[in-house]
Amino acid sequence: ARPRVGYYYSGKSPHEVVAAKIRRFKVGELQSRPVVVGEATSIHDAIITLFLEDVGTLFVAREGGILEGVVSRKDLLKIAFGTGDIRNLPVGVIMTRMPNIITTSPEEPAWEAARKLVLHEVDALPVVEPVADNKNELRVVGRFSKTTVARLFVEIGERR
Amino acid sequence: ARPRVGYYYSGKSPHEVVAAKIRRFKVGELQSRPVVVGEATSIHDAIITLFLEDVGTLFVAREGGILEGVVSRKDLLKIAFGTGDIRNLPVGVIMTRMPNIITTSPEEPAWEAARKLVLHEVDALPVVEPVADNKNELRVVGRFSKTTVARLFVEIGERR
Repeated sequence: ARPRVGYYYSGKSPHEVVAAKIRRFKVGELQSRPVVVGEATSIHDAIITLFLEDVGTLFVAREGGILEGVVSRKDLLKIAFGTGDIRNLPVGVIMTRMPNIITTSPEEPAWEAARKLVLHEVDALPVVEPVADNKNELRVVGRFSKTTVARLFVEIGERR
Repeated sequence: ARPRVGYYYSGKSPHEVVAAKIRRFKVGELQSRPVVVGEATSIHDAIITLFLEDVGTLFVAREGGILEGVVSRKDLLKIAFGTGDIRNLPVGVIMTRMPNIITTSPEEPAWEAARKLVLHEVDALPVVEPVADNKNELRVVGRFSKTTVARLFVEIGERR
């Protein structure tokens, strides 16, 4: 545990201490397990998966976990609300597709990832890593969501 | 602007400085406008409202803004996914109903409200105020969501 001292030298204003602390966390320390489906999964089955796994966003990947798309609860509500045949429509037709997906990586500061969530108005980002032999392919390794940020915020505010 | 000093006396460890700062924000400083429908609104119209207003949660209130219920995107997806007649079913049949609603108030620390979001696994809380003449009634005055927390987190981490 950190020793308690009455004062300390930091060269920083209290605001900077707080900002620096908040910017120190890495996505990789906080990310959750990604919930992944294939592009051919029916929208019906995707909705079932969303409820069973209790997440707000599904990532669509092919063999090897290569990211192909993202489908949100909002996308699924829009289609379930329509008259489409969700048993025979694949998620591929409604997903946001690469390269239009906002992603993060385990090494990115969580603060930057939170900024992406806010700026791009999405609920979750896939945490990805490059695939050695192909710069255009990304492997999904985690999930970073507004829930992740809320949990971190609560944890930082705990008195220890 | 706060003067920049090389050191300062606070009687607190850096961690406590950060925790104290995070606990200082009030819900009332951060809340958004609530998006409210009546209990008789059809589920169909509630979904339309959700998309038009681009929110994840609707609050259900009666005259005077008195809180009656809460309906989430998740609740709406579940029913839109089913075979119910969403044009003729009112949101009242699927909403979480008072007194089972987790709420916050403008004076509550945002940190406590964030903690409620995490603990109760909900995306948004209605910000409420008591109604003078009835202790069991609450008036909806705002919305506090995981998005609110993410925005605050990003703002605190900005270098100024």
